[in-house]
Amino acid sequence: MRNALLGSATALALVAATPAPLRADASDAQVAAVIDEGLNRSEAMVTASQLMDGIGPRLTNSQNYRRAADWATARMAAIGLQNVHREGFDFGLGWNIESYRATMVSPRRIDLMAIPVAWSPPTDGVLRAGVVVAPMSKVEHFAAWKGKLAGKVVMISLPGATSESTKPVFQRFDDKQISEYDRYDLPSFDPATADRRAKRTNFPLELSRFLKAEGALAMIRISYRDGMLVHGEGYNYRPGETLALPAFEVAAEDYRRLVRLAAGGPAPEIELQLNARFDDSTLQAENLFGDITGSDPKAGYVMAGAHFDSWIAGDGAADNGAGSVVVLEAARILQRLGVKPRRTIRFALWAGEEQGLLGSRAYIERYLATRPVDPKLTGIAAYSAWSQAWPIAPKPGYAELKAYFNLDNGGGKVRGIYAENNIAAEPMLKKWLSPFEGMGASRVVTSKTGGTDHVYLQAIGLPGYQFIQDPLDYDSRVHHSNLDTLDHLRGDDLRQAATIMAAMLLQAANSDKDLPRMPLPSKPVPTDPFKVRDPDE
Amino acid sequence: MRNALLGSATALALVAATPAPLRADASDAQVAAVIDEGLNRSEAMVTASQLMDGIGPRLTNSQNYRRAADWATARMAAIGLQNVHREGFDFGLGWNIESYRATMVSPRRIDLMAIPVAWSPPTDGVLRAGVVVAPMSKVEHFAAWKGKLAGKVVMISLPGATSESTKPVFQRFDDKQISEYDRYDLPSFDPATADRRAKRTNFPLELSRFLKAEGALAMIRISYRDGMLVHGEGYNYRPGETLALPAFEVAAEDYRRLVRLAAGGPAPEIELQLNARFDDSTLQAENLFGDITGSDPKAGYVMAGAHFDSWIAGDGAADNGAGSVVVLEAARILQRLGVKPRRTIRFALWAGEEQGLLGSRAYIERYLATRPVDPKLTGIAAYSAWSQAWPIAPKPGYAELKAYFNLDNGGGKVRGIYAENNIAAEPMLKKWLSPFEGMGASRVVTSKTGGTDHVYLQAIGLPGYQFIQDPLDYDSRVHHSNLDTLDHLRGDDLRQAATIMAAMLLQAANSDKDLPRMPLPSKPVPTDPFKVRDPDE
Repeated sequence: MRNALLGSATALALVAATPAPLRADASDAQVAAVIDEGLNRSEAMVTASQLMDGIGPRLTNSQNYRRAADWATARMAAIGLQNVHREGFDFGLGWNIESYRATMVSPRRIDLMAIPVAWSPPTDGVLRAGVVVAPMSKVEHFAAWKGKLAGKVVMISLPGATSESTKPVFQRFDDKQISEYDRYDLPSFDPATADRRAKRTNFPLELSRFLKAEGALAMIRISYRDGMLVHGEGYNYRPGETLALPAFEVAAEDYRRLVRLAAGGPAPEIELQLNARFDDSTLQAENLFGDITGSDPKAGYVMAGAHFDSWIAGDGAADNGAGSVVVLEAARILQRLGVKPRRTIRFALWAGEEQGLLGSRAYIERYLATRPVDPKLTGIAAYSAWSQAWPIAPKPGYAELKAYFNLDNGGGKVRGIYAENNIAAEPMLKKWLSPFEGMGASRVVTSKTGGTDHVYLQAIGLPGYQFIQDPLDYDSRVHHSNLDTLDHLRGDDLRQAATIMAAMLLQAANSDKDLPRMPLPSKPVPTDPFKVRDPDE
Repeated sequence: MRNALLGSATALALVAATPAPLRADASDAQVAAVIDEGLNRSEAMVTASQLMDGIGPRLTNSQNYRRAADWATARMAAIGLQNVHREGFDFGLGWNIESYRATMVSPRRIDLMAIPVAWSPPTDGVLRAGVVVAPMSKVEHFAAWKGKLAGKVVMISLPGATSESTKPVFQRFDDKQISEYDRYDLPSFDPATADRRAKRTNFPLELSRFLKAEGALAMIRISYRDGMLVHGEGYNYRPGETLALPAFEVAAEDYRRLVRLAAGGPAPEIELQLNARFDDSTLQAENLFGDITGSDPKAGYVMAGAHFDSWIAGDGAADNGAGSVVVLEAARILQRLGVKPRRTIRFALWAGEEQGLLGSRAYIERYLATRPVDPKLTGIAAYSAWSQAWPIAPKPGYAELKAYFNLDNGGGKVRGIYAENNIAAEPMLKKWLSPFEGMGASRVVTSKTGGTDHVYLQAIGLPGYQFIQDPLDYDSRVHHSNLDTLDHLRGDDLRQAATIMAAMLLQAANSDKDLPRMPLPSKPVPTDPFKVRDPDE
């Protein structure tokens, strides 16, 4: 209802004469048909506007995530996918923002650019207090502030200095830059590092409990980008592990002004208001799935994926509405062409990626393989521990996933794909991308890339791949920030990416040979067998 | 009271032993003493924090401008300047913001990044209405919207597209870049252009009156920079010429989202609230002055200047708190050294620069020279007309101003000076800057530079000069925007600039010879005597 475009777009798809179904082998003619549908009749930007403009940010297990999930599954059904369904997994609390405000009220009135930290407790109405600049980054720093924080809003970050970046804000790769990824980095394994990572504690939680015990009223941190950008990432979403007091992130310019005023005279007073609600009605987050069923039940399946969840600043457009739209548009293109692939093609939209690839990991543990990770570990500790837990125990589904293609590097067009050090897979990946040389998308580079939902598949030896994309202004200013709106996507880039995603899926689904796999990983030996551990580590 | 630093800084100046007064000729030893005081005991950043953090933006003739003017004249007196005083000139209405807010309330709630247009009428409480996208940039566009705007908030700008700037955000000049300014551009005079400029109408006023007559409730325009930057410049400050309805500028990302939503479904509804007050208790804006009296009353005076007024976004730090602080710090350095210059050194802080160099023009017309401009002309029309009105009628003071140095290119350090096409002045300017070659500040380039308070002095043949400064992020994101805070200045750059300003003033004040002047300008002949005027112009 919010947006008439879905209706009209679907109508369009229905009235247009359906072309004859494509033959089951992925011929050049099929790829040409995919290109024609994907580039000349794209619905990518209309779909993107419905999701980003109409619905907006999608924090995992928030009401708005569920609203978006309803929209996405309706879209999958309208496209004509089969087996459209959701799968819940253990996550944590829902958290929904009604409104918030941060204002400096003395020595003068300034509305501060600020954002609550995700899963921050709400304020009790409007909180008004003086600030104290008390930077703390480890437990050892607490002692110096004992007895000095009662009734204060605590500024917990060092102010730092304004950036002097001489890099361009907006960028497209040239071949030379892409070639820098065409390398094989020697892997290294240091038991001490893995050990330390797995023991990583939840410092924000400890800090908030110390501040609460000291009678502080709230904590504010500085944004890690300047230019009035804010982000608001937070990881304390487990029941019983939420922050002990309200937490905000304040724009660098506004934070530093507070620091200077506090140094130059009486501490500024600020007002903080956060009207947010925790929701424990379900602790399950949901992944979304739809299939194009293959003709050969024994041939396994291929899968496209992107994470559907986002952070709370902006509309989650580049991270990762873009990937989500590409997955949905690739499905539409293939359905519109009536393809009858040999292998099933599965379209997945993941939850909980921003909290540690939780959705794709839940899928892996349910269907593909398990690793013996302490279930009490959360956040970065669990994220690191999972890839280092041995042995890997494959499940029956392990053999069935023949290829996974992930898109999660913003709104830039596809330039190629990372081979994840799988030398054996490179020729087939090159063949499948070769039709897109003219679109600048045919590069296959040897290196691995991380930070998104193909990682845990690679960690268990399954063929999970992530595309190379033009950076645009993703890293410079958009990633996780209040600039992550549809404005920072590009229609041309999105339809190119969706077209290539569709063609890769179709070729992988119809391929005579499976994409070569890596051997099942097992625990590596220490890279430096003679390393003496630094006692200060 | 707001800030303890002025107190302590003054105290420091008092307790420290006063050095022996410098001899009247500007020797290298004097410049060395200026460098020592300016670089080793700078008060520039402390002063800057008092003004930018403690007081903030200084819209001409606003309460906050007057608050800042009280602070600046107190600072001039504390430094020990003589003849500290203010001079009013005819300007227009005061305008003071209490609070404002812009929120999209349907299809979902988003606090919009927005700013009122300066001198916008307030809203009557909270205004709630649907938007209509009706881009209009000339009177001819009105007809298409007659009868379609009643009860609406009118979006008057074309949405455009997100920037793809590949320029670095932050920049320092290399010698090659500075050399590009070392050129003489042939002047050109086209009576038609001058004529057209002088006839330039006040389109925002006409548009607002049309919208009001149509029953529209408010107008919003798009920011001219993206990245959630806003500016809020407005020029309708004359009684009887204020906009007919409330006007806001909305960040590009938020504006374009509204446009897309309006195209895709029911028009979004927004709430606008602006609590602002016009103040007609005085229509005079005030320039600020202080002197170091010279020993030779017949030798005339030299002057440093910067505009003290700012726009309303940010704190007016780079534009032009930086220049104002440099002028005050140069005065402090020279007073601290107890200089006894031959010529009087005058320190000027101008008002109304952002509305067309109004403060410096008022000073010129009172003391230096007049031009026969239609007094009814305002804004850009008056700005253009003044330099083209003939003849110039010098006043007795015309002969007395021997040199004027302006600083208004942001917070970057001084790299040299523009010779304003005055070939005869270059050798003396080079000599005065030669001590600063090691600070990268000794370049004298031939070209002219515009847009600030030396312009009208040059327009009447007086020696008004503006320094070359490193750009930093002034043009890329800070100029007039909500990023114009102290964070985007640099302490090292400010103290270098103040030191050089002090040394230039001292050398000019003690120079045996006057800085060579250009001849008194008279009306040029048309550059193209055979030009046929385009009837569509």
